[in-house]
Amino acid sequence: MADKYTDFVSRGWGRDLAKRLGLPQPVRLRRYEPGAPLVPGPVLLVGSGAGADALETAMKGWDLEILRDAPAAGTTLGGIVIALDGVSGPEDLSAPVLAAGAALRALAPSARVVTVSRRSSTADEPALAAARAGVEGTLRSLAKELRNGATGNGILLADGVEADAPSALGALRFFLSARSAFVDGQFLTVGTAKGELPDDPDKPLAGKVAVVTGAARGIGAAIARTLARDGATLVVVDVPAAGDSLAKVANEVRGTALQLDITKPDAGERILEHALSRHGGLDILVHNAGITRDKLLANMDAAKWDSVIAVNIAAQLRINDALLASGRLGEGFRIVSVASTSGIAGNRGQTNYAASKAGVMGMVRSTAARLAGSGGTANAVAPGFIETEMTARIPLAMREVGRRINSLQQGGQPVDVAEAIGFLASDAAGGISGNVLRVCGQYWMGQ
Amino acid sequence: MADKYTDFVSRGWGRDLAKRLGLPQPVRLRRYEPGAPLVPGPVLLVGSGAGADALETAMKGWDLEILRDAPAAGTTLGGIVIALDGVSGPEDLSAPVLAAGAALRALAPSARVVTVSRRSSTADEPALAAARAGVEGTLRSLAKELRNGATGNGILLADGVEADAPSALGALRFFLSARSAFVDGQFLTVGTAKGELPDDPDKPLAGKVAVVTGAARGIGAAIARTLARDGATLVVVDVPAAGDSLAKVANEVRGTALQLDITKPDAGERILEHALSRHGGLDILVHNAGITRDKLLANMDAAKWDSVIAVNIAAQLRINDALLASGRLGEGFRIVSVASTSGIAGNRGQTNYAASKAGVMGMVRSTAARLAGSGGTANAVAPGFIETEMTARIPLAMREVGRRINSLQQGGQPVDVAEAIGFLASDAAGGISGNVLRVCGQYWMGQ
Repeated sequence: MADKYTDFVSRGWGRDLAKRLGLPQPVRLRRYEPGAPLVPGPVLLVGSGAGADALETAMKGWDLEILRDAPAAGTTLGGIVIALDGVSGPEDLSAPVLAAGAALRALAPSARVVTVSRRSSTADEPALAAARAGVEGTLRSLAKELRNGATGNGILLADGVEADAPSALGALRFFLSARSAFVDGQFLTVGTAKGELPDDPDKPLAGKVAVVTGAARGIGAAIARTLARDGATLVVVDVPAAGDSLAKVANEVRGTALQLDITKPDAGERILEHALSRHGGLDILVHNAGITRDKLLANMDAAKWDSVIAVNIAAQLRINDALLASGRLGEGFRIVSVASTSGIAGNRGQTNYAASKAGVMGMVRSTAARLAGSGGTANAVAPGFIETEMTARIPLAMREVGRRINSLQQGGQPVDVAEAIGFLASDAAGGISGNVLRVCGQYWMGQ
Repeated sequence: MADKYTDFVSRGWGRDLAKRLGLPQPVRLRRYEPGAPLVPGPVLLVGSGAGADALETAMKGWDLEILRDAPAAGTTLGGIVIALDGVSGPEDLSAPVLAAGAALRALAPSARVVTVSRRSSTADEPALAAARAGVEGTLRSLAKELRNGATGNGILLADGVEADAPSALGALRFFLSARSAFVDGQFLTVGTAKGELPDDPDKPLAGKVAVVTGAARGIGAAIARTLARDGATLVVVDVPAAGDSLAKVANEVRGTALQLDITKPDAGERILEHALSRHGGLDILVHNAGITRDKLLANMDAAKWDSVIAVNIAAQLRINDALLASGRLGEGFRIVSVASTSGIAGNRGQTNYAASKAGVMGMVRSTAARLAGSGGTANAVAPGFIETEMTARIPLAMREVGRRINSLQQGGQPVDVAEAIGFLASDAAGGISGNVLRVCGQYWMGQ
């Protein structure tokens, strides 16, 4: 779905009009194109210590120009990386954060700010925990101050994981790149030193077999297209009633279609059987299928409540159980589930939907622990306001509000959700598990 | 500070006008008065199993009328308690949640909905984790559907903690009571079976010596008054420049004043010395003192950044260190820090303030772990929009927005923050540590 408003106010007389009337002026976000530069200019790296030096070496290996001192007047920066992994007390944030602040005006449109710091834990001494947790408040505020499509996100390293661990670099590339266009104000936690950067950064899923449920349209179809673009072989799944649309998507991505009601008891076995018999393996499972049956709880009936729970969470649990019990998955199996900001913040009229999506997040954290031994991961993405057929049916005034109350002042595109899933499904994210990554433009609504 | 708008639209022709124009119509919230009933009517208890039965017994001991079946037509409920501690999969939420939903229209103004469930953990099987996490999405949505000052909050029991453990009952009483007027959409986690309900519920802090920093005005003065009302002996602390106001507060609460710059290296020693020499002990420390020095990070200077860090977090760390190292505190020492929703969600223009307040949350989690052995606790409250001299200086339009974008459609009062702190400082909260309790009327802004 196009966002006509953003088109209108981003050029010509529409742009002048919006400026004069003080209307929100969302900009066209930089989105991924194979072969385009990772960032739109040199990257300023602030902070000192082993982490900063390791990040400099790694980023130079990506053919980026890295500045370690304040940029010369007139420089346009593609990004700022703030290395904070060595802070030991809250006073240590000052120098690197202010150095980053002094360079904010030099950022190009759709530039990136990325913090690299350590996850705060109860095992930390209080001053250390305060410094580490403080990074989160800083970054979330900073992201709200950026303009012109620039975003701010952070990487949280577990103790023992170095700043240049594969998944830390994978997350850094993702956040710097156009793939994270609509990810803003968010953190990814790198829990282990597992993971592997791809040989070809434009084909990170080469050789992988991926199943996507609910793939006949909308976000699911975008996920299938994006994973296929990144090199995966696709199995697209949807209900028989969506068979025609599903066949079109399957043709488009040169994959195979599986018509299946995911709430059936044997859905997991059928998915596995299809993937193994047709493609010889199953590496990635994307649980995207989901429904809404909105009603205030005072008016909710059991049919509406139960159907949402059945499709959105019970089916995922049953399918995962079947796959994990089969013993027929390879090492490094990837599960990515689609949750929702409604599951985090709650939403009026969506007690059932929010229960199911919060449930998905609980499931993912538990499943991550169970997959750790085999090198597998389970993560979720939580979309905010995304421009789809579903959101196009929201009444105009509400839709306009929903779209604008985020730091990027616009709705996201289905491809934005797909890019985040593509990253979490890749080998580069092998050290990232049990995360919930919001794809919401830093949507205001939260816990 | 009075909220004149709420006064205006809650009675007479102002009420009619607001109704016709479709303006927000916040209601006067029920607030604590000694001797008033805990809830404004009978309590419907839904859910089954040992947890529900234990809760029934406990609540009957508080002289509440408890209904276990749908209320008769015409009944006005004071609250609904949803016992969900026995759920094992997401399907188990349906019956009790729908039973609660069917009774929502019977709720009195300022009634209460409280869920009692178990904290989701990575050790849970995926279906169990999904069910437990699902409660959070349900409750947060439900709270957004309540009207007329009614609130929804939840209690998360750690495994091994029963539904009628002292702090679970303490949290239940707090959530049911008028003390939690502006706490909405929030959870308290009960981590241990420690804690003790007070002999006199109107004097839960009898015999305690409490120190409150930043107590000369605003929220700090309200904290001092509320803790004194609840039976504590007060030491009120503020900078020498606020000496006159501080003396007035000290007189009012029949406590003693300590003029002190909390950023001085010996602040902790001076607080301890004062409390011990004047009052013979120190049981409760409330870190309320805080400052703002707002600027966009691009315009921030080191003086502004560093002063906020020094007052809001570094001072708390240094004072805690001194007190905990002294070996002169009793068992069950209580620390309650004032954080902010800005530290959770981030806020434009407040990178420094959000860093300090997020830091407070990290500090509290770490300190909680260090106090566990001695039966002490450390927690934080995170106020949202509270009507104070500080918020009265926000330009009108921004202030109106800030006040209305929460489920109760109004700003909170300083006493609302104070009540939450009073609860966390009490013996009844002995099993609650490392929590951050938002006092924000379910302010929309979050992570």
